[in-house]
Amino acid sequence: MRLSSRVTGLLNIKYPIIQAGMAGSTTPELVATVSNAGGLGTIGAGYFSPHRLEQEITYVQELTDLPYAVNLFVPSEKLYIPEKVEHMNAWLRPYRRAFNIEEPVVNMTEKQQFEDAIEIIIDKGVPIVSFTFGIPEQDIIERLKARHITLIGTATTIEEAIANEHAGMDVVIAQGSEAGGHRGAFSENTSQLTPLIGTMSLVPQMVDHVNISVIAAGGIMDGRGLVASMALGAEGIQMGTAFLTSDESGASELYKDAISQSEETDTVVTNVFTGKPARGIDNEFIHKMKEYDDEIPDYPIQNQLTSAIRKAAANVGNAQWTHLWSGQSPRLAQHISAWTLVENIIKEANELLND
Amino acid sequence: MRLSSRVTGLLNIKYPIIQAGMAGSTTPELVATVSNAGGLGTIGAGYFSPHRLEQEITYVQELTDLPYAVNLFVPSEKLYIPEKVEHMNAWLRPYRRAFNIEEPVVNMTEKQQFEDAIEIIIDKGVPIVSFTFGIPEQDIIERLKARHITLIGTATTIEEAIANEHAGMDVVIAQGSEAGGHRGAFSENTSQLTPLIGTMSLVPQMVDHVNISVIAAGGIMDGRGLVASMALGAEGIQMGTAFLTSDESGASELYKDAISQSEETDTVVTNVFTGKPARGIDNEFIHKMKEYDDEIPDYPIQNQLTSAIRKAAANVGNAQWTHLWSGQSPRLAQHISAWTLVENIIKEANELLND
Repeated sequence: MRLSSRVTGLLNIKYPIIQAGMAGSTTPELVATVSNAGGLGTIGAGYFSPHRLEQEITYVQELTDLPYAVNLFVPSEKLYIPEKVEHMNAWLRPYRRAFNIEEPVVNMTEKQQFEDAIEIIIDKGVPIVSFTFGIPEQDIIERLKARHITLIGTATTIEEAIANEHAGMDVVIAQGSEAGGHRGAFSENTSQLTPLIGTMSLVPQMVDHVNISVIAAGGIMDGRGLVASMALGAEGIQMGTAFLTSDESGASELYKDAISQSEETDTVVTNVFTGKPARGIDNEFIHKMKEYDDEIPDYPIQNQLTSAIRKAAANVGNAQWTHLWSGQSPRLAQHISAWTLVENIIKEANELLND
Repeated sequence: MRLSSRVTGLLNIKYPIIQAGMAGSTTPELVATVSNAGGLGTIGAGYFSPHRLEQEITYVQELTDLPYAVNLFVPSEKLYIPEKVEHMNAWLRPYRRAFNIEEPVVNMTEKQQFEDAIEIIIDKGVPIVSFTFGIPEQDIIERLKARHITLIGTATTIEEAIANEHAGMDVVIAQGSEAGGHRGAFSENTSQLTPLIGTMSLVPQMVDHVNISVIAAGGIMDGRGLVASMALGAEGIQMGTAFLTSDESGASELYKDAISQSEETDTVVTNVFTGKPARGIDNEFIHKMKEYDDEIPDYPIQNQLTSAIRKAAANVGNAQWTHLWSGQSPRLAQHISAWTLVENIIKEANELLND
């Protein structure tokens, strides 16, 4: 086995290590550090306004000449059901009151925002784009490919991987059940039904069914995980949690500490924060909201309804009322520079391969 | 990396491949074939009467001179609640009627059966015993160790692995969430609460926290999985589903075909068949019984209540009313000899390591 692969050539990177999008927690420093260390940094643009996206890309371009990616959330047709929003607002009232927060006005501009992001990506010459929550429409894929932008899709099942390949993605992330944060699933996707296939099962079955490069994600934190993923047939790895606790990450100290202090059994998959299932450390907000499991408004509505509450809670050091996305390997999380993390992984992987 | 390890020396086997207990589906031929091929065959004795256990051990000893193991279910204190059993019998009536099956008399002799099994294991000179559902009492462990019997425990969390090590187990199976059949969990263990940590997360965290040999289980079907597991720090692998579809397995053709025809998303974790959570292919019985999720009698009661129904269903080719344990990698299942399976895995692993 070798650490260089088709995908390192395709993405023009030295090491097959991708830093996951992690919307809300990436910084230009993190993205550039990972890319400068030889991996692929990713701007987590899922929640960005066009203006913010433009700024972040500019900043990253100032910090690195090497390839980096932008991760986007693919919009889907979702219904705004006023009654559901009213109910949720009533349940969220105690939290808003605690922080003196106004009820937000929900916007349904997700699709417009996505299209604006595509324009910015083309204008700014972004070399690589990754997608979560689905596959963009064919005309968008063709526009990006015409500009020689490399496309990375996300799949939680073999069927989703095949759909990504058919749509023209160059690379597909196999997101195993261990992964922290949002499930990338787009075939079925409620908290009860979202596919949760472990990385050990998902990767080899996916590799057997698609010809494009497969990147393993979920539970991978170190050189052991990199070599294991390559053995399963992946050409590289994507890591979120491992980079989330790094020095350059935008996650708060509260958030980083919550991960470091947690155990492998502490996470659950829940849709109560954003309306889409995501893996995070269990806390009071999840427990309280579990009652209304069937009545949570869809993403992006629920995300907008809870966003200010989560920010306010994090600001005052309240880990019980904010999301704490984490994968199932928190015992392997380290508070070190993303640069050192990449270096250590490659060193450990090479030692394993040469042992 | 090398395929020989501390554990191959400890178990006195050539290859670090353990065939999982798979109560109900192992045959002496399967056990002996795996051992003769250089791995470790395991008699799945979980449901055996003392007489049956004695017979199976004798038969295996006739078929191989090499080490093999016996897998036992560790009994736990469970309550027989007459009301719960009455309700379940009412819900099961339509199934019994369909097959002309009498209501069974539930026996609570699990503990006695376990103690008898320990005597037989000592008398017959069984070299290795593995345990599922917990850790036996200290006096039993000491009696087995005094006879130089090697002990293998099962853990689904780091805490359970540490408990196994403290109790004196020589080896611990890290059972990842991908694994088919019963969850070995003994800390928390209801369908809702049973820990489901993916193999990619579980193995390296476990290796970091215990000094005894860790064996990876869950989703592993081929040489790729073996090398991946070794990279994560495991000293070997345990496979159930991969051996279940082998020629020598005792599983019915119905059962084997159900696995071969299924996809990675087709399994669920359910307690409706036996009273303990187990991963199997979703079917009508699971759907119907899901309604009574909170009212399923504990193992071994529910197991006894549904056992004859499941056997009768399997006999008439009804895959909807019987258990179909399977892990999350059914696309990798093969109908080949267990001997060839072991040989292929070692060949593929060596090719990967030398590539």
